[in-house]
Amino acid sequence: MKVKDIGEFGLIDRITKRPKDKDVLVGIGDDAAVIKTKKGLQVLTTDSLVEGDHFRREWFHPVQIGMKAIEINVSDIASMGAIPRYVLVSIALPNDLDVDFFEKIYKGMWKSCDKYQIEIIGGNMTHSEKIVISITLIGEVDIKNLCLRSSAKPGDLIFVSGYLGNGRAGLRLLQEEIEGFENIKKNYLEPKAQLKTALKISPYVNSMIDISDGLAPEIKHICNQSKCGAIIYKDKIPIKVDVRSLAKTLDEDEFDYALFGGEDFKLVYSVSKENLDEVNGFLVGEITEKQDILLSFNGKEKKLTQNGYDHFKEINQK
Amino acid sequence: MKVKDIGEFGLIDRITKRPKDKDVLVGIGDDAAVIKTKKGLQVLTTDSLVEGDHFRREWFHPVQIGMKAIEINVSDIASMGAIPRYVLVSIALPNDLDVDFFEKIYKGMWKSCDKYQIEIIGGNMTHSEKIVISITLIGEVDIKNLCLRSSAKPGDLIFVSGYLGNGRAGLRLLQEEIEGFENIKKNYLEPKAQLKTALKISPYVNSMIDISDGLAPEIKHICNQSKCGAIIYKDKIPIKVDVRSLAKTLDEDEFDYALFGGEDFKLVYSVSKENLDEVNGFLVGEITEKQDILLSFNGKEKKLTQNGYDHFKEINQK
Repeated sequence: MKVKDIGEFGLIDRITKRPKDKDVLVGIGDDAAVIKTKKGLQVLTTDSLVEGDHFRREWFHPVQIGMKAIEINVSDIASMGAIPRYVLVSIALPNDLDVDFFEKIYKGMWKSCDKYQIEIIGGNMTHSEKIVISITLIGEVDIKNLCLRSSAKPGDLIFVSGYLGNGRAGLRLLQEEIEGFENIKKNYLEPKAQLKTALKISPYVNSMIDISDGLAPEIKHICNQSKCGAIIYKDKIPIKVDVRSLAKTLDEDEFDYALFGGEDFKLVYSVSKENLDEVNGFLVGEITEKQDILLSFNGKEKKLTQNGYDHFKEINQK
Repeated sequence: MKVKDIGEFGLIDRITKRPKDKDVLVGIGDDAAVIKTKKGLQVLTTDSLVEGDHFRREWFHPVQIGMKAIEINVSDIASMGAIPRYVLVSIALPNDLDVDFFEKIYKGMWKSCDKYQIEIIGGNMTHSEKIVISITLIGEVDIKNLCLRSSAKPGDLIFVSGYLGNGRAGLRLLQEEIEGFENIKKNYLEPKAQLKTALKISPYVNSMIDISDGLAPEIKHICNQSKCGAIIYKDKIPIKVDVRSLAKTLDEDEFDYALFGGEDFKLVYSVSKENLDEVNGFLVGEITEKQDILLSFNGKEKKLTQNGYDHFKEINQK
């Protein structure tokens, strides 16, 4: 059996052990791990960008590569309701890479770090045929603001914090070498973590996750871990006019972009009805007791079985 | 200018900024970063293993790959005098990798983690053409045990905690497909961090570092950061008989293995004369005021100018 046959969910199941250490509040399986310290709760996440899979040197300016490496990790910390503080960078570089290119990657990392008042405190460099940037981001969270995937409640309404589908749309534009649509391309090349939004709503949401893999698999993560289900109202998914128009041009489905496209880095969160006044966002669904994920449209409900974007099952960016 | 032209030291210089955050005690440039928390000091390190550069699937059992990924990071934490606690794993996998191979990598990681009572608390999985394992290890240290690269003092004696050259010798055996020498091969395939030794001596040493890149560049790291120099007594470098015999067979220099070979994961530390009773190890040199690194042999002293093993300047493991 190959990695592509069982996908990310299957792989994670096979390697997860219950933490023995009582200081580990959240282990493998959320956007970030949470450990108890006397100062409060520390939140830790890691993510890698692999050349060819997550970026191409022809498409990305090296400053954009560095910025993206930081933003996608800040997005994971933000979705826990936490404040990012420290970064470790493990970078693998080809021997024949221009030093200038390397420096610009770090310039991009520092640029995003400065924006969030994060410090790069350490790291490691090694050789590789392709550029691999692995970021570990450490943050802090007050327990009353901590947002987990596992705390959604039946009856919660599901919101997203912004328009979806831009990530996949941007990728398709670059893959198909289509002129124009500069805003969509920029959204893909320069994703931004929604830290401010996350910190504002975190005391009021029951569960939260960032949309790196598409709305459907993220809601599936929440439902799996909260042992509940969801209905997604397809028609309510916010998709920008130019993304719709691009999908039409390419004879593709804009809802596929939003549901399974990935790389949007918006937030999806569930809120109990008494807290509705405290949050903004686009209503896209509801948490249900029954453990199915349903897509509702035209008055019908369809069970969502597709995994959506899975790093081991879907197309690469090549 | 290419990455290989300026090497690791040059690259690090270009991206290092002084930390602004007063909680960052040690930033970029040591084996691990150190941040202040109310509980005490937290130590954080990261390192990557790239298939083709740091391991080959033909040589390593997947359990050994997992063990090595953990051990090399424990070695970095140990050399700070710290106790390892938590691991984050960012792993990139080819689609066609056997799930069994993947599971065995994690089996190896858990095996080493269990030995040191470390927990894997989180991580990330993504796709890549070659396997890349990036580990972040978080530990704790009491300030009286903290060992930095920057605290060596002129007059300190320099010790190593074990025999050197095994790492490079093991690599050469596998590259040249030489039968026998099973112990050396095992040392290369299953390196062990010297955590117990490190914790025992850490209160008494002025500076410490683990030998991942060869004795000479590690002493250079200590001298650069401590603004001092060193004399290395070449004849005192401990090298096992079978490593000497292998080097002879291959018409190579066993001292090159020890000085520039890398992957030994022993400790090198400097000790002031009043603490000599408290530490063991092989005496290999002395810290000097003058900022040169000299190799002393046959009554002569030669300035060491070579960088030794540098990930961007030397041979790969391919």
